[in-house]
Amino acid sequence: MEKGIGISPPAKEDEPDGGIPTAETFLRLLPMALCVSALVIMLTDSQANDYGSISYSNLGAFRYLVHVNGICAGYSLLSAVITAVPRRPAVPRAWTFFFLDQVLTYALLAAGAASIEVLFLVNHGDRAITWSAACGSFGRFCNKATTSVVITFVVVACYSILSLISSYRLFSRFDAPITCTTRGFEISNLQG
Amino acid sequence: MEKGIGISPPAKEDEPDGGIPTAETFLRLLPMALCVSALVIMLTDSQANDYGSISYSNLGAFRYLVHVNGICAGYSLLSAVITAVPRRPAVPRAWTFFFLDQVLTYALLAAGAASIEVLFLVNHGDRAITWSAACGSFGRFCNKATTSVVITFVVVACYSILSLISSYRLFSRFDAPITCTTRGFEISNLQG
Repeated sequence: MEKGIGISPPAKEDEPDGGIPTAETFLRLLPMALCVSALVIMLTDSQANDYGSISYSNLGAFRYLVHVNGICAGYSLLSAVITAVPRRPAVPRAWTFFFLDQVLTYALLAAGAASIEVLFLVNHGDRAITWSAACGSFGRFCNKATTSVVITFVVVACYSILSLISSYRLFSRFDAPITCTTRGFEISNLQG
Repeated sequence: MEKGIGISPPAKEDEPDGGIPTAETFLRLLPMALCVSALVIMLTDSQANDYGSISYSNLGAFRYLVHVNGICAGYSLLSAVITAVPRRPAVPRAWTFFFLDQVLTYALLAAGAASIEVLFLVNHGDRAITWSAACGSFGRFCNKATTSVVITFVVVACYSILSLISSYRLFSRFDAPITCTTRGFEISNLQG
């Protein structure tokens, strides 16, 4: 039970975090595992048969997907380690996470969207531009590519949540005015 | 000049906004104009010659781009009107803008990324899947589509900034603890 008159402590700014870091560390390790899975599946995605051969590297969108998944796996591991270490969070760190989480979400989403479009085209072709569907001849290639893209979209979902968390952390650091204004009295500008 | 002892006012929460709304209203009207431009350019993008005919509607990515630009134009106008009306900002409004700005940014980016991939394929084709380039025969179609996609990416840039502004507004609404803790004294829990 607190009692008495005193200078109020610097609200929240220096408090160590509670339960969120554990959940956040998990939410950063999960996309790391998923990125590595998507990466390995796409890297090993090639097929050769009587019709010819096809590889992920033949399509720019899939190459970009591999690169972004690699970067995302590295960043996820690094950020998970940083959030797991129990220390007082600083404002620059919160801004950095907020910014990088956003950038990663954008990069992953762009890779996923471009790959979805390519998947649609290799599945259905485009009669107007005389592009034929390739999945009839290269079914295994298409299945593996689809799996990799679906996993990437799960990573996008994770990173959307992480973006919300990192912006919430930035935001919740400054929720003290309510206690200042409703529970206490303030002596201000006595010098007039 | 303020003087005396009193209950401190609800800091910042109810203050009308300063110079940001004007800039924000402009930043919301600009993408509206750009979205309408990108929409009109893409909607009128079709070409017929001896090789055949091609239209934006033959490609799923371009159809999606048209839809997203239409939604974005409507939302931009609505949100510009709301930010232009001078009234006290509420926390739910800040959260709504924050959320919708993010969603629009994601949707626009996905449309732009998918369209960029299609533009790359119609420009260069893909030898491994025997997809031929179409821009040699339909140069005007490709140029108009490129213009529309470039404009969409300018809109994505605007919305990235708007997302930052809306999250900053959410964040800056709660920056009062510094005045509470460094400039004043607090009498709290006197009833023990």
